[in-house]
Amino acid sequence: METRTYSGRHPADRWWRPMRLDRVHCRRRFETGMVATLGTIDAAGSPHLVPVTFAMLGESVYLVVDQKPKSSRQLARLRNIRRHPAVSLLVDHYEPDWAALWWVRVDGTARIEAEPTVMAMPLQALAAKYPQYRQEPPAGPVIRIDVDHWAGWTAS
Amino acid sequence: METRTYSGRHPADRWWRPMRLDRVHCRRRFETGMVATLGTIDAAGSPHLVPVTFAMLGESVYLVVDQKPKSSRQLARLRNIRRHPAVSLLVDHYEPDWAALWWVRVDGTARIEAEPTVMAMPLQALAAKYPQYRQEPPAGPVIRIDVDHWAGWTAS
Repeated sequence: METRTYSGRHPADRWWRPMRLDRVHCRRRFETGMVATLGTIDAAGSPHLVPVTFAMLGESVYLVVDQKPKSSRQLARLRNIRRHPAVSLLVDHYEPDWAALWWVRVDGTARIEAEPTVMAMPLQALAAKYPQYRQEPPAGPVIRIDVDHWAGWTAS
Repeated sequence: METRTYSGRHPADRWWRPMRLDRVHCRRRFETGMVATLGTIDAAGSPHLVPVTFAMLGESVYLVVDQKPKSSRQLARLRNIRRHPAVSLLVDHYEPDWAALWWVRVDGTARIEAEPTVMAMPLQALAAKYPQYRQEPPAGPVIRIDVDHWAGWTAS
């Protein structure tokens, strides 16, 4: 049973009531996501968004760079984190039936890990979640995001 | 037929080749999305992410505030835009088969429109796309995002 506190409106003609999710249920739902949106800050101080795969270990979220570093898109992500380590990750669930909507957001602090010994466990967790990483192990680096704050919402 | 230019690696053992999408196909795919992630900048200069519904009219993307303004989540979004109008929107498509992945990102400039005459057309476009807005028209305000840059990627 989920423990949830009321949040948002609930018109009389709607049977479902939006709820904020507590930390435990935020984490539980977040982990079920196969893709998240990573938000970083670029040199101009503007938001930069990209979809990412991820795995959790303890209280940290791990991403991996799985494309050639010469790709400018990848470098932007790493450059942004080096400059501004505060990042945000969103997992959201959409369906045409809005009573089934939910999302979970992580606000955290990112750092880049390129040491093979440090990358081993996160790469194993990512390979356990995604068969593609078992077929073709990503070179890294790994991005570690320590969770500063959980936020989550469910429509009913 | 889509016109695409090659981007990213293509190992010999993978039949699909990642491609960047041009402006026309970015826009076409973006519009098919039912939910996007909106990235704004908070008072601390950190990214803030939230899922949003949206509709396009001309070269602008329109979102609407569809919850009570007393919700702190909604106010954060509006406050962030007033302070820092550069925003980013991401529509991404995930499936277990990574050859079918794609995403499209809009980097743009947001402004808040609360005038009923200005909101009329965007609200109509949103209601045409989402039956929920026909049953229960959102009060607004509307967020208009003028597209400064399109970026898009498809795995194959």
